Amino acid sequence: MVDSTITAREQVTSSKSLLCELLRQFYQLGWCTGTGGGISMREGAGYIMAPSGVAKERVQPNELFEMDRDFAITNLDSLENKKVSECEPLFRAIYEKTDAGAVIHSHSVNIVVALSHEREIPGLSWERLEMIKGIRGAVYTDKHVVPVIKNTPRECELTESLTACLEKLPNNAHGIFVRDHGAYIWGRDVMEAKRHAEVYDWLCQYKNATTR
Amino acid sequence: MVDSTITAREQVTSSKSLLCELLRQFYQLGWCTGTGGGISMREGAGYIMAPSGVAKERVQPNELFEMDRDFAITNLDSLENKKVSECEPLFRAIYEKTDAGAVIHSHSVNIVVALSHEREIPGLSWERLEMIKGIRGAVYTDKHVVPVIKNTPRECELTESLTACLEKLPNNAHGIFVRDHGAYIWGRDVMEAKRHAEVYDWLCQYKNATTR
Amino acid sequence: MVDSTITAREQVTSSKSLLCELLRQFYQLGWCTGTGGGISMREGAGYIMAPSGVAKERVQPNELFEMDRDFAITNLDSLENKKVSECEPLFRAIYEKTDAGAVIHSHSVNIVVALSHEREIPGLSWERLEMIKGIRGAVYTDKHVVPVIKNTPRECELTESLTACLEKLPNNAHGIFVRDHGAYIWGRDVMEAKRHAEVYDWLCQYKNATTR
Amino acid sequence: MVDSTITAREQVTSSKSLLCELLRQFYQLGWCTGTGGGISMREGAGYIMAPSGVAKERVQPNELFEMDRDFAITNLDSLENKKVSECEPLFRAIYEKTDAGAVIHSHSVNIVVALSHEREIPGLSWERLEMIKGIRGAVYTDKHVVPVIKNTPRECELTESLTACLEKLPNNAHGIFVRDHGAYIWGRDVMEAKRHAEVYDWLCQYKNATTR
Repeated sequence: MVDSTITAREQVTSSKSLLCELLRQFYQLGWCTGTGGGISMREGAGYIMAPSGVAKERVQPNELFEMDRDFAITNLDSLENKKVSECEPLFRAIYEKTDAGAVIHSHSVNIVVALSHEREIPGLSWERLEMIKGIRGAVYTDKHVVPVIKNTPRECELTESLTACLEKLPNNAHGIFVRDHGAYIWGRDVMEAKRHAEVYDWLCQYKNATTR
Repeated sequence: MVDSTITAREQVTSSKSLLCELLRQFYQLGWCTGTGGGISMREGAGYIMAPSGVAKERVQPNELFEMDRDFAITNLDSLENKKVSECEPLFRAIYEKTDAGAVIHSHSVNIVVALSHEREIPGLSWERLEMIKGIRGAVYTDKHVVPVIKNTPRECELTESLTACLEKLPNNAHGIFVRDHGAYIWGRDVMEAKRHAEVYDWLCQYKNATTR
Repeated sequence: MVDSTITAREQVTSSKSLLCELLRQFYQLGWCTGTGGGISMREGAGYIMAPSGVAKERVQPNELFEMDRDFAITNLDSLENKKVSECEPLFRAIYEKTDAGAVIHSHSVNIVVALSHEREIPGLSWERLEMIKGIRGAVYTDKHVVPVIKNTPRECELTESLTACLEKLPNNAHGIFVRDHGAYIWGRDVMEAKRHAEVYDWLCQYKNATTR
Repeated sequence: MVDSTITAREQVTSSKSLLCELLRQFYQLGWCTGTGGGISMREGAGYIMAPSGVAKERVQPNELFEMDRDFAITNLDSLENKKVSECEPLFRAIYEKTDAGAVIHSHSVNIVVALSHEREIPGLSWERLEMIKGIRGAVYTDKHVVPVIKNTPRECELTESLTACLEKLPNNAHGIFVRDHGAYIWGRDVMEAKRHAEVYDWLCQYKNATTR
């Protein structure tokens, strides 16, 4: 008798393949050139996370980190020489403070240019654009605000301000933009996180093209 | 004896593959990121339509809706959990009011930016550009006008103004632009609809680059 | 005994595959969307030419026209329903007046935008840019001029002004730009024509980005 | 007994495949259209270098030059009709004056446009941008400067000024920009050179979008 149920291990393998496929797609969109950017998702009771400092479009499934519910790496043996993403504490804060099932870190130049337009405002906002509806819960006629925080010399130092920002997140925001840096964007699962990242990128492209 | 005729069923299968291939192509062109946009075509006496709210570049043939001549879904059993495109009533209005054999819904940022330049005009227009000839019936020396309607909070609420717009369509227009949203573009068959969508996108890129 | 010489027929087959591959590449570069643009090359004593009015990224080798030295189509039987490129008389004029072994017709928006900047000048020019060296014979320190002609309502009507322009071609120019339309670009063989087309596209991108 | 060690020859073969793959990727990024641009890396005690004047996205492993420690070509027999990259003396100067294990020559229009903004300055600089960290040794809070030299009519004539520039390289700079031309960018190995090239390209895109 053949058991057709997908085992937990097969599920991990399948999720890892999907993450690598998405990293290649994000590279082509310009979100993770220069080894920047990253991705992670919940898997079972734990997490899967991309490695740091490698060409993201070339990451293979066996190079991804597996972590338990406490973010302890469980497959370190097979990953010597690799370093987990520097974003780890930031990803972790987002998992702990929101309902995120996946988090994407984008270095898209579209986002960083949009952040350069008005340096004093506490958030970027859009209203009455159809694409806003691509963000879960966002209402077409309301102003959709994504908070902006300042960058810090080291990525791990961002944790404090990002955590503070997560505590008072504007309605339906599913991302935090980091000035001079990029964005952290999340969703209930990895496909929703991807949808949100595409929507925010479109909205920044639109802002850049219509702001003079 | 082998009957080499393509059966109706084989034709449906082939059309579904083509639609999925085009969706991948449209994603790369930036027309359906964030799960936006859509496509549908006449098939036999009925229609094929893309699902709503899914990553368009990953749609598989077996995820497309089949409908009869009255737009009743005929393959619902195999599609639980999927939702037909929210554009359904809009696609339907276009099939009923024009000779369309296929309709494309585009969220191209090029089009939405072009719509932002002059907010009061009732249409975007171009003249004396070779690319205009890519629109069936369009004459190089005439002004080619594509009507613009206002967006509405819910996509289905667009039906009324889109239908009114279809009643008094400018000469040879094969699209209707929706401010802050995107476009509905059609053709006699799916390849003509694609050609028209590429032409309108090119024309909007040109307008954006030459409007200061 | 096996004869390893490539037969004339095999050479035709190989050239047709290359042209189809280049059309797919040109589509991705935005040079032949909306079924615009085209390509042709000398093959043996005759020519190979792309069909008109079809999605260029989907052209298959068996859809290309073969012509003899007098531009009479020799494989018409297998191509019913296809129309040879409307550019045929223009391609022909270029073959007759220059040493071209291949001609590319581009609808690149980069070129048409560059042509919109200064509507009175008889040509676009560049000097002291490394990319100029990609044009055969062009000298880095000289001004490289590409002549510009006006567009006409029908593509075949361009033949007269294009022919006149070919008679007094500026030094080393390997293209003629058509205002509001695109460009005809050629080279000794198809790879040189492609190189020239890429160089002219780069030069127009540069002009567009640096002209305010 | 099977020796599983990778032989020196297998290593060369593998490096050549990687270089060809990267050239295809760079072509898609617009860094080596028009047969411009190039790449080389150290291999064993010698070097591998791309050929000159060919379509870079089509280069095959057996078309790459192999050189010994003195830059003498060792596989010339198999490469008749090919010419080593005109950048050879420039690549060589960089290998001799820095710790480079690989050098990329980019004709990216993003870089050449960035160089057009301020024609008098001796270098392009950026500060407080996360992407700067993608350059080895670069510090987020310091100004990162990449020196700019003038172009010369022939590529080989650049050697003198490039060598002089290498003698007084700003802190952590891993590239030299050439006005009206492009850039030479290097790293300890080919993946680091690629990372640096992607970072500099992103920084120039950002400068172009935010400089008015």
